Parts: sequence; C-alpha cells; structure tokens
Amino acid sequence: MAEVTTAVVALRWRDSLELLDQRRLPGEERWLPVPGAAAAARLIRALAVRGAPAIGLVAAYALAEEVRRGSDLARLRRVARRLAAARPTAVNLASAVAGVMAAIAATPESERFERALAAARAQHAADAAACLAIGEHGAALLAGERLSVLTHCNAGALATGGIGTALGVVRVLHAQGRLERLYACEARPVLQGARLTAWEAVRDGIPVTLLADSAAASLLASGVIAAVIVGADRIAADGAVANKVGTYPLAVLAARHGVPLIVAAPVTTFDLTCPDGAAIPIEQRHADEVRLVRGRAVAPAAVAVFNPAFDVTPPELVWAIVSERGAARPVTPASVAKVAR
Amino acid sequence: MAEVTTAVVALRWRDSLELLDQRRLPGEERWLPVPGAAAAARLIRALAVRGAPAIGLVAAYALAEEVRRGSDLARLRRVARRLAAARPTAVNLASAVAGVMAAIAATPESERFERALAAARAQHAADAAACLAIGEHGAALLAGERLSVLTHCNAGALATGGIGTALGVVRVLHAQGRLERLYACEARPVLQGARLTAWEAVRDGIPVTLLADSAAASLLASGVIAAVIVGADRIAADGAVANKVGTYPLAVLAARHGVPLIVAAPVTTFDLTCPDGAAIPIEQRHADEVRLVRGRAVAPAAVAVFNPAFDVTPPELVWAIVSERGAARPVTPASVAKVAR
Repeated sequence: MAEVTTAVVALRWRDSLELLDQRRLPGEERWLPVPGAAAAARLIRALAVRGAPAIGLVAAYALAEEVRRGSDLARLRRVARRLAAARPTAVNLASAVAGVMAAIAATPESERFERALAAARAQHAADAAACLAIGEHGAALLAGERLSVLTHCNAGALATGGIGTALGVVRVLHAQGRLERLYACEARPVLQGARLTAWEAVRDGIPVTLLADSAAASLLASGVIAAVIVGADRIAADGAVANKVGTYPLAVLAARHGVPLIVAAPVTTFDLTCPDGAAIPIEQRHADEVRLVRGRAVAPAAVAVFNPAFDVTPPELVWAIVSERGAARPVTPASVAKVAR
Repeated sequence: MAEVTTAVVALRWRDSLELLDQRRLPGEERWLPVPGAAAAARLIRALAVRGAPAIGLVAAYALAEEVRRGSDLARLRRVARRLAAARPTAVNLASAVAGVMAAIAATPESERFERALAAARAQHAADAAACLAIGEHGAALLAGERLSVLTHCNAGALATGGIGTALGVVRVLHAQGRLERLYACEARPVLQGARLTAWEAVRDGIPVTLLADSAAASLLASGVIAAVIVGADRIAADGAVANKVGTYPLAVLAARHGVPLIVAAPVTTFDLTCPDGAAIPIEQRHADEVRLVRGRAVAPAAVAVFNPAFDVTPPELVWAIVSERGAARPVTPASVAKVAR
C-alpha cells in the first residue's frame, strides 16, 4: 500500500504554539499564535480549533507555554482547571492537561518548561501514532475491494495531531486503493463537514461528495454506503458514544439499513469513569450558531433555538469501536475496557 | 376556540398574479409580479414560491394570465405541459394546470379568461378550505391539554393558499390553547424551516424554537415532542410520502421514540396512479444549494454534492395521513383511498 500521509496540519510548535484558524476554512489558511492558556481556552471555545484530540494537544502545549512564562504551581493548577473546562463534552481536554501537570509535579522549577513541553510533544506524537494505528485497525474491519463510506463532522487531521481518527480509516483505505468515495455530511450548525472534511479530502486528493445532514438517510437507503465511520468526543464504559450532534440519527439509520457504524477514537477519548451515555455532559451552544450562517441571518433574529453540540449514541447501535489498541466488536463493557487503555 | 387565522399570504390575484418572493425571507418582504406562464415556471424552479399546493395555485393563475393574453388552445397546452414539468416531485402542479385546462376546454374564446380565472380562484378557495379542515382533523387526532410538536421544512401559509397543512394543524392547536411550542427543523439546504416556518410562527405569535436538522434526534429522545407533523409533495396509493429531504430520517427516529408522525396534505397532493414510493420521481437540485449558504461559500468550490430535494417515507412509518376528507389511520391502501378524493 502507498504511504499514509496528509498535507493537513491542525497545530504546531515551532518556537511557540500556533494553530490553523479553522473558523476561516475553507476560504483562508491563517495560522494563529497561542500566547498562553487564556488564549487557548478562548480559541477552543470559539472553535478556532476543535476535535477532541486536537483541543487536548492545544491545551497541553498552552500549559507548557504558561510554564515557560514562570507561572507557579498554584497558578498552573488554576490555569489547568480553566483549560479543562473550556469545553465540557470532550474528555481529552482534562486528560491532556492532567498529563502535563503530572509531568511537572515533582520537577524543579528550572526544568519544568522542558518537561512540560516534552510531555505535550509526547502526547502529540502518541496521538499521531494512534491515528495511524486506528486507521489500520479500522480498515482491517472492512472487507471489499472498493467501498464508499460516510462520515459526519470532522474527525480528520484537523481534529487530531495526525491523519485523523475516522478520516484516518478513510486515508488508510485510500492508500490501499480500496476507497471508492468518501461521503461527508456537512454537520450543521458549524459546518465542519463542509468546511473542514471536504477541504481536507480535496487537499489530499481523496474523492469526496458533500451532502446536507438530512440527505444521509436517502444515501443510506440507496445502498451505496459500506460503512459509516465517525469520531468521538467521549466514550463511556458501556460503549455509549458522545459525538457531534447528528451522529445518533446516523447510527439509527445505519442500523435500519444494515450498514455498520464504526467509531474511531484514541484511548484518550475513553472515559471509563462515565458508566453510560446519560453521565456524559452535553454542551449547549449559542443560538446564533443556528440563526446565522457565516455571519448572515438565516432566521428571524428573535427566534428561540435548541442547539446541543453533541448527541449520545447507545452502544447497541455501534458495530465497532476502534482505538489504537484494536477493535471492540461487539461493543460490550468488556470489549470497550480492552481497547480503552 | 379562537378564530384560526394567519397574517401570512404566499400569493394573490388583484388585477394580476403576484407572489411573495420567499427567497428574500425572512429579511425582506417583496411582492413579485408573475406576467405569464414562462415567468411562473422560472420562479417556481428558482424557489421564489414553493410548497406543493402553492406552486399548483401559482401555475393555475399563470395559465389564466396566458389565456388573457390570447394564447390559443394549442399554445396553452404547450404552456401547461411546461408549467407542469417545472418541478417533478409535487403532483399538484400537474393537477392544477389540468384543472384550468379542463375548465376552458369547451369554452368559446371570449369567455375563456373569465372561466380560467374562476377555475384558479376556485382552486385557491378550495385549498384555503382544505387547510382549515386538515388543521381541524389533525388537531382532533392529538390528545393532551398542552403539547409541543416538531415540523420540518415549511408546510405553512407560505406553502399553500390558506393557513398551511402541517402548520394548519399547528395553528388550530394554537387557537385551541393547546400548543405549548412549535419546534422547527431548519431544513438545509434551502433552510425553509429557518427562513419561512420560523418567520411565519413569529409573525403569527406562535411560540417557536428552531433547530438544526441533525438535532431533531436529540429532541425526540428527550421526550418533549408529542407529534411530528409534516406536509407532503406527493402521496402514493400505498401511503408512501414524498416530502422535503429529511422527512424520512425524522420518521425513522419518531418511530424509534414512540412519537406519532402525522402527514398533512390536501387531496390534490395524493397521486393514486403512483403505486408506491419507488414510483415517485425525486428531483436532484444544484450542487450550489449545498456548497453555498445565502450566496456565501461554505465548502470548497470543486466538491461534488449529493442533493436530493425530497425523500420517501414508507407507509409503515406514518402514524396518520390527514386530508380535508379526514384521517387515514392506520395508513393502508384502503384508508389512503378514502381520504384521497
């Protein structure tokens, strides 16, 4: 098979942390400096960077930046808490900052920055390796010489430190010459599918077709889709999956049409302290995400809005969960525990 | 109960046909003259007016305008054929122009315009009466003192010659003091829910909450919705319903969560010559409807797009079909035939 690569990068540390401003894609590629934890939290909340693994890495590097600025441990702990709370659903944020804090806990002040940066870099490298392993495990689950798959939102290079999770599987299929076509739901309200997944795919030469979220049912009914592959923001101990709103209806429809649903996520996305989906907090976001598109009104200004950022898919609708440790299939508490660490 | 009324009007004949340009809503209310059948077909294709009953009425009045301009019967037949083909899924377009043609078939030339206009006006009045009857039949199906309902796209006053079909039911519930809240899916790609249904509801003082299409599953899972009520573009003899893309996934999710799905449509929307859903042609629309929102790019310009305007919901997922003749429940070929004429 061809080498599995991508031209797409979400974040980088050269002399300091920078991230690709995903709010401006696909129209403009602008790199933003992230001068510390407060800036990181603000950019994460504003969706300049999103995707559970990517926001974890941004938080880890931002904490290293805070260490470089000489913050004492008490302040670092406060900063870490605020970073971890920037978005409530993804668990990666909390575990990434906890990892950096653990690395510097018993370290003399003069070595703290070096240790913090090394910890963030190790998380970044681990995530890139995890994406590749996830891609290979996921592709191995799927038989067939040529297949088309459907994804939702963006679980790609832009959401991770590597080739992506769901799009990691897609990139491996493509490198193997087995990908007929990637279908991408646009993922209203923030349109990560249209703006990010379609852009990633075009950038990497992956054949891609975009659709409105509500057209996915017709596509699944038509029989062209071999698998639905999505990422996750948090996976509970029973295998319930919190992911971008619109994942749960795709899961219901995939089951109805006999199409397997594969959830692809690194071990950092599993939260075995959450017993089930009901225990996962679901972030409600601002009404203007729905009332406006790219800054332009598409609805009366005064209308009330229901805008959950995520939904929860119960384990019985998930055909397999794939982490860098392998595949949980069928999805049971035992199989989930096996691939979760 | 309070009188069932609306301040919203989609089309009117004063000295000639005019329609409210729905492409400009909710930002601007602009009335467009429709100087003949070619203009009507163009405006229908461009979605300046949409909704199966409303486009039928526009076509009927436009044909009357053609008669006034002195077109001979041969030309009128050609014009009628072109009007009927402006959009393939809604059956109302064909039956509306057929109705006007039948009214003038054996009429001396000097009386044709009067007869054609009378036929269009009769269709308009019949549609308004049908909406009211549909609203009452639909509301009577639902028990409960206060209920919230979910709708998709716009099956309102803007889609008909009266108070709407699905929104007719909603308006009757509201007049009865039984409506807690209307939830409206935005209906990407053309956003008729956000732009039209939310606007209609706000205009008429109906409490309304807007949501992205993919959030409807979370809403249904939450248990707040007593019924899903939608319109239809064509109903086949077996009760299969073609309606705005996104209706079929709502039907699947409503069934999963034990929420009844009510389809509300006048007899003009039934097509008993279509045996089932597979026989209903589904219009594919332009890729730019998905690539752009209100004229602004939200995806790479070159990306391929899957953009069916409608989908088909099988009869087993429809709890009831309501026409001005009453309710078909359960939905069977026999019960459908009874309410279809």
